[in-house]
Amino acid sequence: MGTDGPVRYGMVGGGQGAFIGAVHRIAARMDGQFILVAGALSSNAERALVSAAELGIDKSRTYASFQQMALAEAAHKEGIEAVVIVTPNHMHFPVAKAFLNAGIHVICDKPLTSNLQDALALEALVETSGKLFVLTHNYTGYPLIRQAQEMVQAGKLGDIRQVHVEYVQDWMAEPVEQDASNKQAIWRADPEKSGKGGCIADIGTHAYDLLRFVTGLKTQSLAADLSINVEGRLLDDNANILLRFEGGAKGILWASQVAVGNENNLVLRVYGAAGGLEWRQENPNQMWFTPLNQPKQLLTRAGAGASVAANRVSRTPGGHPEGYLEGFANLYVEAAELIRHERQGTIGTAPPSLLPTIKDGVEGMRFIEACVISHQNNAAWEALEAN
Amino acid sequence: MGTDGPVRYGMVGGGQGAFIGAVHRIAARMDGQFILVAGALSSNAERALVSAAELGIDKSRTYASFQQMALAEAAHKEGIEAVVIVTPNHMHFPVAKAFLNAGIHVICDKPLTSNLQDALALEALVETSGKLFVLTHNYTGYPLIRQAQEMVQAGKLGDIRQVHVEYVQDWMAEPVEQDASNKQAIWRADPEKSGKGGCIADIGTHAYDLLRFVTGLKTQSLAADLSINVEGRLLDDNANILLRFEGGAKGILWASQVAVGNENNLVLRVYGAAGGLEWRQENPNQMWFTPLNQPKQLLTRAGAGASVAANRVSRTPGGHPEGYLEGFANLYVEAAELIRHERQGTIGTAPPSLLPTIKDGVEGMRFIEACVISHQNNAAWEALEAN
Amino acid sequence: MGTDGPVRYGMVGGGQGAFIGAVHRIAARMDGQFILVAGALSSNAERALVSAAELGIDKSRTYASFQQMALAEAAHKEGIEAVVIVTPNHMHFPVAKAFLNAGIHVICDKPLTSNLQDALALEALVETSGKLFVLTHNYTGYPLIRQAQEMVQAGKLGDIRQVHVEYVQDWMAEPVEQDASNKQAIWRADPEKSGKGGCIADIGTHAYDLLRFVTGLKTQSLAADLSINVEGRLLDDNANILLRFEGGAKGILWASQVAVGNENNLVLRVYGAAGGLEWRQENPNQMWFTPLNQPKQLLTRAGAGASVAANRVSRTPGGHPEGYLEGFANLYVEAAELIRHERQGTIGTAPPSLLPTIKDGVEGMRFIEACVISHQNNAAWEALEAN
Amino acid sequence: MGTDGPVRYGMVGGGQGAFIGAVHRIAARMDGQFILVAGALSSNAERALVSAAELGIDKSRTYASFQQMALAEAAHKEGIEAVVIVTPNHMHFPVAKAFLNAGIHVICDKPLTSNLQDALALEALVETSGKLFVLTHNYTGYPLIRQAQEMVQAGKLGDIRQVHVEYVQDWMAEPVEQDASNKQAIWRADPEKSGKGGCIADIGTHAYDLLRFVTGLKTQSLAADLSINVEGRLLDDNANILLRFEGGAKGILWASQVAVGNENNLVLRVYGAAGGLEWRQENPNQMWFTPLNQPKQLLTRAGAGASVAANRVSRTPGGHPEGYLEGFANLYVEAAELIRHERQGTIGTAPPSLLPTIKDGVEGMRFIEACVISHQNNAAWEALEAN
Repeated sequence: MGTDGPVRYGMVGGGQGAFIGAVHRIAARMDGQFILVAGALSSNAERALVSAAELGIDKSRTYASFQQMALAEAAHKEGIEAVVIVTPNHMHFPVAKAFLNAGIHVICDKPLTSNLQDALALEALVETSGKLFVLTHNYTGYPLIRQAQEMVQAGKLGDIRQVHVEYVQDWMAEPVEQDASNKQAIWRADPEKSGKGGCIADIGTHAYDLLRFVTGLKTQSLAADLSINVEGRLLDDNANILLRFEGGAKGILWASQVAVGNENNLVLRVYGAAGGLEWRQENPNQMWFTPLNQPKQLLTRAGAGASVAANRVSRTPGGHPEGYLEGFANLYVEAAELIRHERQGTIGTAPPSLLPTIKDGVEGMRFIEACVISHQNNAAWEALEAN
Repeated sequence: MGTDGPVRYGMVGGGQGAFIGAVHRIAARMDGQFILVAGALSSNAERALVSAAELGIDKSRTYASFQQMALAEAAHKEGIEAVVIVTPNHMHFPVAKAFLNAGIHVICDKPLTSNLQDALALEALVETSGKLFVLTHNYTGYPLIRQAQEMVQAGKLGDIRQVHVEYVQDWMAEPVEQDASNKQAIWRADPEKSGKGGCIADIGTHAYDLLRFVTGLKTQSLAADLSINVEGRLLDDNANILLRFEGGAKGILWASQVAVGNENNLVLRVYGAAGGLEWRQENPNQMWFTPLNQPKQLLTRAGAGASVAANRVSRTPGGHPEGYLEGFANLYVEAAELIRHERQGTIGTAPPSLLPTIKDGVEGMRFIEACVISHQNNAAWEALEAN
Repeated sequence: MGTDGPVRYGMVGGGQGAFIGAVHRIAARMDGQFILVAGALSSNAERALVSAAELGIDKSRTYASFQQMALAEAAHKEGIEAVVIVTPNHMHFPVAKAFLNAGIHVICDKPLTSNLQDALALEALVETSGKLFVLTHNYTGYPLIRQAQEMVQAGKLGDIRQVHVEYVQDWMAEPVEQDASNKQAIWRADPEKSGKGGCIADIGTHAYDLLRFVTGLKTQSLAADLSINVEGRLLDDNANILLRFEGGAKGILWASQVAVGNENNLVLRVYGAAGGLEWRQENPNQMWFTPLNQPKQLLTRAGAGASVAANRVSRTPGGHPEGYLEGFANLYVEAAELIRHERQGTIGTAPPSLLPTIKDGVEGMRFIEACVISHQNNAAWEALEAN
Repeated sequence: MGTDGPVRYGMVGGGQGAFIGAVHRIAARMDGQFILVAGALSSNAERALVSAAELGIDKSRTYASFQQMALAEAAHKEGIEAVVIVTPNHMHFPVAKAFLNAGIHVICDKPLTSNLQDALALEALVETSGKLFVLTHNYTGYPLIRQAQEMVQAGKLGDIRQVHVEYVQDWMAEPVEQDASNKQAIWRADPEKSGKGGCIADIGTHAYDLLRFVTGLKTQSLAADLSINVEGRLLDDNANILLRFEGGAKGILWASQVAVGNENNLVLRVYGAAGGLEWRQENPNQMWFTPLNQPKQLLTRAGAGASVAANRVSRTPGGHPEGYLEGFANLYVEAAELIRHERQGTIGTAPPSLLPTIKDGVEGMRFIEACVISHQNNAAWEALEAN
């Protein structure tokens, strides 16, 4: 295989019945830059085998445990170059550790870990390992989100004054975690697996990362009022959060899993002295931009108002909608570029990457931690240590 | 004039250059239930005269001061039955007092007064006067807002869990109050005239009243983070507020005058255990209703899903949009009904009214007061005394 | 009454149970420029009396027939200056004739008459009478429609290439005219009262007038495929029409009363070499404008992109939605201006009027006639004689 | 390779600079069911080589001509099982012929050919060949389009009365085909390559296929008014078409490449006696359904109202938007299923396929032919022979 060939990867987690594993696989496959060659797809040995077979993974590279997989692949002549971690949160750290120690790059689902301590340990490990670590805050891969960031940086909005971000769903409006077949819900509602945060960890971190990505603002402190709306639930399913940023900007972050009528309603609105931007994930191919005292403009991905940054990660002409999987796949394309640079020893010449890093992951964990502490203190302001 | 004839009214404030005075006059006129026969339209004597002439008010009933007007009209054989107060906030109390003391019903723009003390004094006065007092929280007059209330009361949403209300504008994104010709901005930005609240008083109270009207929730406490985004401005132009209600529901209220790209973006979203409702003032003829686990429905004013309460205050068939003035006029129609009942001595038989009252006005002032105190305490929770 | 006072008017038709009569009355009343003082509100004597009493019309000016009313009012010292005709179509001509002959201005609902012959006779009569004749194609009163016309005239769209207009409803999807209580439906479905056109007359003429108003295009010919979708119905309830204009532009006009899910979906889309415009009546406060090779802009009534023509007929600031009644009322405001000019003998100095005239009414009747003939000829092209 | 492995395919056309070739490759790759192993990617030998290298096609299977490729692959031990044809229209027939004759399945872009004669010849050839022939009318792959078909078949709309379909773009509003670098435009505007139809062939056939797919209606006749809006252009860039269907339903089809402000605005609206459906390709994850006399419902892909047919072809949960590529890929998934059945000799047991066939392709060519003839006859009705 030449230095240009696709990246060989393995997956931990993501067996039958998992949602996000399949998403990662499609995203990795879409642009032909990755091939799946190994897996420890389930902690259930039976399921791990069956799932791997379905995916065409060779039996010799189907593993019963991630530890075994890390060792074997590190030793394999054509071993995996990257591992994709799509387990419940509490397993992100041990799995990442095993593969980093084995000298294998890591692509990891969010949130980074199930607690801040693990996150900090992982951060240290990544730094000493010299390996790549990509956290799949996939919404940052949307073309118009790239453009939004570019517009803020170019000063099109002026000084940011107010940010309003919400990530609102309704799939946990009922006690779905009590349904034994609902794997998705069960681990997310379980503090052992999810960590201290429920809604704030699962989707709040996405919203928080998105606002950071686009605005570049540094959070000074937050005040979080968390709720549990369904009897018997152990983790928050709604979070109402006030934000204060360095430099004086302020914000609101609302995350909910119980707002009936919302499927995956992630909305970002950014207002500065010179303009405003509004974007909704459920129709990600359009974004509103209002320059001060001018009519609102509808910017479309790949349309007349699309920027360099947006076009760089677009596949189809304007009006042919791209969606969630394409945005996700953009992270994989960029990860493949970095991995090939590593492969070729040219990483020093790689252009600046927009991929979410271990640092973004730690920031997300600080966010969760601060939310939980603030909430315990009756939603008092809690500082976020600078990252 | 028979007991059925239109209500004779006078206006205080609302001379040339005022926006809201003209709105009240159209709203009063639209259904033919009021006639304007007297006025003290401006504290500027010249402007008062010219404005009255333009409106066809007889010179003999054009007054240089509201005090004079109250006395003269009370003594007039065909004197006004109601006064409409559309002055800056600080004048609401003295004007209302003068007319209540003169035995004249009061229709008053919001917020009730410029401070809580005046509000409480006015409340006492209204109670002893036996006169009607209508506060024009006009958004409660929209047909679909009436339906929303009805649906909540009928349990269509189940127990309310989360309320998100926002009233977002951009007209003060620049220091418009420094433009000497901008009457609207000047008094609103002046604590002497507006009171302690800027944005929270001018539009925050509307948003707060709307959520109370629809949900019937009683606020327990709030945490308000107010901002001034324009240099030299004295009052808040953005408010990020967390709400807690009796019974455990929570909410977010966001009011802004600096969110570029928003004209008059009042949005109410209510989520309960059994369903969700979403409504936007800028297209008030439609409302989204999602029953739990069912597709979202688009309810339209006067359409197949319109309720009794909505149809009662509709004028045109579905698809013929009604707007801000029609919603406003609905309050006038209902005020006229009450005033005719008073005229005929049958007020005891009047059906329950949905009109905002002095109590709603006091609640609005408590809201402003609580926001200011919370803000002074670094957005700490501030209880709202039960009203 | 000074020369500036409101216009005294009477109404023919529009008694209890009628929809459009009430609309005209609100529109006439909204801006205080008209007072209703006389009426022959129903051909049913009982209903005429009761309706007039409800509206506060003096008994002495409540008439059993329009002929009687025309004569009496012409003789009255303070007789009506204008009559508003809101009868079924077949009565427009005789009523208009009676009042024009009595020297009284006419404001008439559309379509002009129930056949082209009457229309041409009426046109001649209006010309010799020297009286004003206003046809209430009310959609031309919307601020953004005024702006659309202005933009086309200013060349913002370049040469027009394609026009797509549709007026789509669903209220006649079932045989509602067989319900004896449905007055609206009964006469509209009756060729004796409505004329040869059903859907094309009732709403098709609105759509056709709107496209003419905005684009100024002159129709060369049309091909109309009419349908009756409900058994037993006598007039078309759906019309699919191709249009060709002088100069080479083309168009499609679709009118329907049976498209389930459409309330009053009047949409105008105009495309030229330099730009495109899109407007929907159900949210009339916004209009899309796309300059060639630039992002789409959202123009709002009274917003940053609102033009002189739009602002001239706006009452409220941007974001406070205006609706159907305000658009309708704009025609009344302009009619009142003209009538006062007539009153004062200054009509020669009046600025050019945008009000729909008798000529627009005749053009509408030619449109209906051409549709019917084309349809009888298997949708062959039928020329429209220049008007 | 087992009988379950991915399908080996080759591509003809789709070299550098082509849009649709890349789309097919992503669609084929997305679900891991196809591998690209051979290609004759350009008639330009240099470009063919470079393009193939970029795509990782082995040099030994990079061909200078499609004839050569058909022969060589047929003889290859692990030769391609299917060819994907993404050339300009005029080459579809000779290429398809070569591969069918070589015993290789064909997946072909639309329209079927550049003239009806070729289409009929190809139809005969497909039938005798016994090979699969899939025409990529990709919009039929959208989940909600599948659901729309299912709903019509289940009678949810009742008897269809009116269909309105439009496919409106603006990318040819200027003479883009005169730009020598614009490969897309050049061949599409060239009758030698595109055939007799411009806009009607390129996008009109998509719209026509979509309405047939969803409604199942059989067209009786059509009347087409075609236009050329840009000087020097040889083929239609706008088509206004009336449709009549067997059974009495009627329709309008509007296709345009010059409607400024429209990117890829494909809209389908279907109205029956019992309900209406509305869908827009630019936001394909939602569809409006209005049951007669009930509120409009917003059906979402994978949401509460999603049907079996929609869920079958969905990859992500509701609110995670899928787009154009996913819809396209659904055709590839289904093609792979059929090809594997062929491979295994079990095609007789395959469930009924929804894939567009050679027959749909012929119908599309009849549509183009009928449009052109109708247009030449001044838009007279032209019958479509039953297919």
